[in-house]
This record gives sequence, C-alpha cells and structure tokens, in this order.
Amino acid sequence: MSISKNQLKLITSLSQKKYRQKHNLFIAEGVKVVNELLNSSFEVATIFCVDDFEINLPVEKIVRILDTDLKKISNLKTPNKVLGIFKIPEEKQLNKSGFTIALDTVNDPGNLGTIIRLCDWFGVTQLVCSKDTVDCYNAKVVQASMGSLTRIAIHYLDLKNYLSETNLPTFIADMDGENVYKTTLPKEGILVMGNEANGVSENVRNVVKHKISIPRFGETKETESLNVATATAILLSEFKRSI
Amino acid sequence: MSISKNQLKLITSLSQKKYRQKHNLFIAEGVKVVNELLNSSFEVATIFCVDDFEINLPVEKIVRILDTDLKKISNLKTPNKVLGIFKIPEEKQLNKSGFTIALDTVNDPGNLGTIIRLCDWFGVTQLVCSKDTVDCYNAKVVQASMGSLTRIAIHYLDLKNYLSETNLPTFIADMDGENVYKTTLPKEGILVMGNEANGVSENVRNVVKHKISIPRFGETKETESLNVATATAILLSEFKRSI
Repeated sequence: MSISKNQLKLITSLSQKKYRQKHNLFIAEGVKVVNELLNSSFEVATIFCVDDFEINLPVEKIVRILDTDLKKISNLKTPNKVLGIFKIPEEKQLNKSGFTIALDTVNDPGNLGTIIRLCDWFGVTQLVCSKDTVDCYNAKVVQASMGSLTRIAIHYLDLKNYLSETNLPTFIADMDGENVYKTTLPKEGILVMGNEANGVSENVRNVVKHKISIPRFGETKETESLNVATATAILLSEFKRSI
Repeated sequence: MSISKNQLKLITSLSQKKYRQKHNLFIAEGVKVVNELLNSSFEVATIFCVDDFEINLPVEKIVRILDTDLKKISNLKTPNKVLGIFKIPEEKQLNKSGFTIALDTVNDPGNLGTIIRLCDWFGVTQLVCSKDTVDCYNAKVVQASMGSLTRIAIHYLDLKNYLSETNLPTFIADMDGENVYKTTLPKEGILVMGNEANGVSENVRNVVKHKISIPRFGETKETESLNVATATAILLSEFKRSI
C-alpha cells in the first residue's frame, strides 16, 4: 500500500499546533515511543509502518509502507520503522492536592520532554503549563518524553489564576531565594519553573510565596544560570528525597 | 571586507574534528559566547562580525562582514552578529585530587555542553572524557556550554587506565546501586557517567568501586531511565550538598 495524498496532507499539517488542535491528533515516531503509546490508554488513529514492524491492531488502522515512503513523512534524521497518528486525549480533571510542577513559558521542546520524563521518574503525576508554554503534542516533545507523556496529566491554563487560587504552598527557583539544601520542603506543593531566557514572569512571580535557590559552588560569578531542565531535576530531587 | 575563499574553506572544515585537531582551532558563535571567550584565557585567531558588533582587538584579527555573509558561514538558525575562530588551548595537567566527573562515551553534544555548565556551577574544575566521547570543541558543545568551557579543564584519555590508577573513591550511577540519598558521599572522588543508550561500558564498570542509584519514585516500571545530563545534575547536587 502507499500513502494517499490526503494522508500525506494530514501528516504534514500535524507539525503545526493549530492543525493538531483542529483534528485532535498528534504524531509519534519510532518503535519504542509508538509501542509505549499503543500500550497506554491513548487511542490510535493510524499506524504507518514498514513490513517488519510487528503490530497487533485491526487491519484498517495499519498502512504498510516502504522505507522510502517513511523517509518522506518522517521528522527524524534516521526514521525507525513506524510513524503513528494518535488521538489527543481529553484533559483530566485538575488535581488540587499533591505535588505539581508548573511551567511558565518554557519554549524548548527538548526541555519540556525532559521535564515530563523527570515528573514520571519522581512520581509527579500532574504538570501544569502556562498557555504559551510549548505544546506537549509537538513532535519533538513527544520524542523527548520517551513515552512518559502517557503517564502524566498535563494542563494548559492561566498560570497566574491557578496560583492565586491554590491553597498549596508555592515555590519558585530564584537566585535570591533560600538555600534549597537548608529549607524544609513540604510533601505537597507547587514548584514553578520559568522561561529559558527570562525565568518566571513578573505577574506569576508576584503570586508565588516561597523563593528557593540552588547555591552556586563555582567561584566565578559569570557562570550562566542552570538550564531549566537540570534545575528542575535538582529541585525535584530535593523535594522527593526529604519525604 | 568580505570572506576570502580560503577563510570560507577553513571555517567549513572546522565543523569536522580532524580539521579542528589539524589546525588546532575551533569555532564559537553569538555575542554572548564569543565575548566570554574573548574575556578568558583562550586565544583568538579571527573574528568575523557585522558592523554593529563592538570589539576591542588588533585590527588584523577582525573581519567586518555583511549579515548575508554571516548567514553563509553560521551554523545557527538565527546567526547573532559574530562568529569567532579560537585556538584550542593546551590540555592542563591532570589533577589527581579533588572531585572529578568522568564521561564514558557520551555522544550528544547538548548533553556534554550541559554537563560542562553543571561542572562550572558546582565548582568541579576538571572533566575527564573517554576518547570516544564527543569532542568538546564541537560547535554544538561550545554553544551549549555557554562560556563554561573556558573555566573547566577537559581531558580526553583512556578511561579504564585512569580509573585503575587513581587512589580516589570511584562511583557510577547504577540501577542496582545504593540509594544515593542514604549514602555518605566523600568530598573528593570520581563520578563516572555513561553513554546515553548503553550506560557505562563493562570494562570501565569493572574498575569502579561504588555503585549509587537515584531511586525511582514513580510507580510504573516502564519509566525510561533519566537522561545523562539530568542524572549528572542530581548526583552532583548530592555530592556537593553534603560538604
């Protein structure tokens, strides 16, 4: 079989957020990620795969294609046997207790994917994002999250409102904050991480109660601040190690 | 002025490790990174920049170029005013005491760059890499390290020999290792981090004494292991917080 013109048009369109939202569909690639999605609660629309990809699905959902066709539709440098179109699941209900990570305008898909993996590792089941944070169904986020996407409830909302209304303790990483290694951290709360270049925006910063910092051990003041994903890793580890 | 054919050929060739080693030169781009290198002990060869880039260097080292020329020679999506050619400094003498990070076959330039920044932040002044780890003068490593490259002594060597000969305690991250949160960590030592897909290779693993692990808090066993840069962030934070 081969890919129809309409299918090709659909796949191409799904690289844009507005078409993902219009069709309620997104793309995942590669054996590992596609299999994780197939084994999750996510619903599959269509799977495009080469002959030696083993799959157990109703035949009408499978399109067997040639390597050369896969190369045409793939976003990967080295396409790996399969590209799947999946349905974007409905947003779960917002959980108002527990521990939540909140992201303010994180732009880099690799950073969001890494943070989703970190949440999964550390048992954080809810991630809240400002509306202008990169879309979690962006193909690069889906690849970087390595299947963790299926286990984390992700919400896009007005971050300032969300933080104003919560009863949980709220934290941001801030150079002038209290040394995180010397702070007693609660089991429940919201940790807000900011944009790659500008940190947490002022109107969000104003509604967050606690400022914490990762102390700099290096002697030079010129050291660039930590990358948002590595800072999230360190802070999440601090919250969880103390439980 | 414009770029000569020979200059263009040199710049293009420096994207390959063998030519960087042959000429002992590497490339850095963008206002921030180039300025950090200019203000360091690194020696500049030539700076190609647009008219409004302010620079204080002997005139023979500066080539003023047009935006369109910068686009031609740049590796960045959005070229930023300047591309510099710098001399690769001589390797410093290996420090046999203190705290060192050692990398076994880390392939991804972004991961190496992030780890160099982490070393700088946490005051680790020496990084040791297996000979097949990605070259630290690779353009993407230079960009991701954000100037921290100038403050860390990086050595490429036979990792197995290095670890066999040291008197310092040696550590690797291993799923079966001791919970890092419950381990007393020394002030001096060597922490070995492994390849993105395969972890630490067996012949290196065999000469490392202590195994430590970052416990998984999430319930699902399917969670992909942590990315090497985020795992390094968490472990480095654990070594340093206890000092």
